[in-house]
Amino acid sequence: MEYKLGLIGCGTVGQGLLEILRNKKDQLKDKHNFEVKVVAISDKLKGSLLIPEGINLEKLLHILDEGKRISEYLEGTANEAEQMDALEMIEKCDAHIIAELTYTDIKTAEPATSYIKKALQTGKHVVTSNKGPAALHCAELMRLAHENNVSFRIEGTVMSGTPVFNLFENALSGNKIKEIKGILNGTTNFILSKMEEENMDYEDALLLAQELGYAEADPTADVEGYDALAKIVILSNVLLEGNIKPSDAEREGIASLSKEDILKAKEEGYRYKLIASTKKESGQIKASVSPQKLSLADPLSGIMGANNALTFDLDLLGKVTIQGPGAGKIETGYSVLADMLAIHRLFSK
Amino acid sequence: MEYKLGLIGCGTVGQGLLEILRNKKDQLKDKHNFEVKVVAISDKLKGSLLIPEGINLEKLLHILDEGKRISEYLEGTANEAEQMDALEMIEKCDAHIIAELTYTDIKTAEPATSYIKKALQTGKHVVTSNKGPAALHCAELMRLAHENNVSFRIEGTVMSGTPVFNLFENALSGNKIKEIKGILNGTTNFILSKMEEENMDYEDALLLAQELGYAEADPTADVEGYDALAKIVILSNVLLEGNIKPSDAEREGIASLSKEDILKAKEEGYRYKLIASTKKESGQIKASVSPQKLSLADPLSGIMGANNALTFDLDLLGKVTIQGPGAGKIETGYSVLADMLAIHRLFSK
Repeated sequence: MEYKLGLIGCGTVGQGLLEILRNKKDQLKDKHNFEVKVVAISDKLKGSLLIPEGINLEKLLHILDEGKRISEYLEGTANEAEQMDALEMIEKCDAHIIAELTYTDIKTAEPATSYIKKALQTGKHVVTSNKGPAALHCAELMRLAHENNVSFRIEGTVMSGTPVFNLFENALSGNKIKEIKGILNGTTNFILSKMEEENMDYEDALLLAQELGYAEADPTADVEGYDALAKIVILSNVLLEGNIKPSDAEREGIASLSKEDILKAKEEGYRYKLIASTKKESGQIKASVSPQKLSLADPLSGIMGANNALTFDLDLLGKVTIQGPGAGKIETGYSVLADMLAIHRLFSK
Repeated sequence: MEYKLGLIGCGTVGQGLLEILRNKKDQLKDKHNFEVKVVAISDKLKGSLLIPEGINLEKLLHILDEGKRISEYLEGTANEAEQMDALEMIEKCDAHIIAELTYTDIKTAEPATSYIKKALQTGKHVVTSNKGPAALHCAELMRLAHENNVSFRIEGTVMSGTPVFNLFENALSGNKIKEIKGILNGTTNFILSKMEEENMDYEDALLLAQELGYAEADPTADVEGYDALAKIVILSNVLLEGNIKPSDAEREGIASLSKEDILKAKEEGYRYKLIASTKKESGQIKASVSPQKLSLADPLSGIMGANNALTFDLDLLGKVTIQGPGAGKIETGYSVLADMLAIHRLFSK
């Protein structure tokens, strides 16, 4: 079965996805009866393309690798798509699936939310790795998808391609969730690991994280817990059927932790982690992000470096923990493929 | 959608499954549109029942809890089912799904394999937690299922209800597996944990494991690695499309490890684990079970006590590790429910 795909945003994640689709073409066709034709790309910085018969990914990736504009693909021929904004492109592109991969604005969730609404309203499935719409408007977007008989899928918003939503939806179904606890931010976990294992000061560990590309120049979103907060809100609303906003959850970052706190905990057989957790009590979601002193028997205490992990505490299975990458070009690109394969399973019968 | 279920074997796992089906009746119907009517039970020791209109689970579980024979259910009325052997029962019971939950005989895989074949040949899906048929005849049984347009599912054979096959089939699909490494035997992991954490001798730790019910009176299958071996053979044949027998894999147990080895490794920052691993090299499966000294950075090194864990090393995601229970009445009972829900997803459209 062939799916036409439109990409809104073609940064790191989009390019990761395109590389996967190029490299795995035969495997996906042979093993999953799944073929993808990329028919549209719209990127604010790099330009746009609309090619109903499908874009040659080898040629496009070569252009992107060289840092050129996407229109170079047409080699000078007129490119009508350059006049279209993303909304127009979504409406006109005749794709089955839109991958919404623009930057996260956690305050407004725009323009991503408008893009997603337009896609759902015109009968297209949407896959996104953008935390904004999922954190602020999940229930509304899920409802809109349902009304239009399409899917709104968000695997990449939490733990990149390490499956959380797809895991619970399929392999853990039938369980009820008592609590979710996770290490959802790789940057802060890297900093805490370095402080404990290599006796580094907070400032030095942060600097190293910045040098290695784990932390941004302004590290506030990571170290103050805003990134983990958005993710635990998404998990609360999707997996616990809550309806909370980021401001409904408690949040404390790691900046207040001193090296002394961490080393003292280590001596006592404990380890500090920035833990995002959520549970439902009498119908109310209780979600929080805060540094917690875990016993070394906790499955999350052994997660070191930039890794992410999530523990589901379940009524039938007890604690099941999944650990894996929390970022990365190919890893997050894969989250989009995983959701497209889920759409293929759900809708192709 | 309602499924008629036949149980072959009604020991711990079967009773766990029946309890789940009783307790989750409403949840499964409301959330998954999934209803189960148990129409047949055949157990060598406890007797048999064949009730096409469905068995009242509350009443049956009460009888089982009291340690009585299953025929008590009929309160003296003639029970024709008592004259039938399991094969006849499978043929006559008109179930959609057979749960094969008899004891594992890892040398012959019988009588379970005959039961499974009969069920598949008469057009019934089969779900099993029995390692014998899956380790010795997986390819043949999968082919037989395919020919009869039904499913042969084995989630419970490895890590009880902690999802391994359902995880890879859905949430990780599209990845290629470079290597699988796991802690697949809870008893030996418990013993190694006690030797390291509480400075116990091997013999004392084994005795404690026996007292707690983790290890059997004859602990050979666990401590010599036969149990983990059967599981890594199943993983090799199902997830790596191999065709190996237990004798094709290397096997070494933990009995040769001394407390001194373990404490010396600990001092050097390592930890001994009984590791089952498999990979495909030039079309050949290389599978083994042996004690390995892991660095503390290995995701498997933090798995303590009777827990199980499996690391998938994947071409797109890198290492993804799932950790959870490896045994238990409700946990293994859940594996059967998970596979039935998978059948529901795959065949109900």
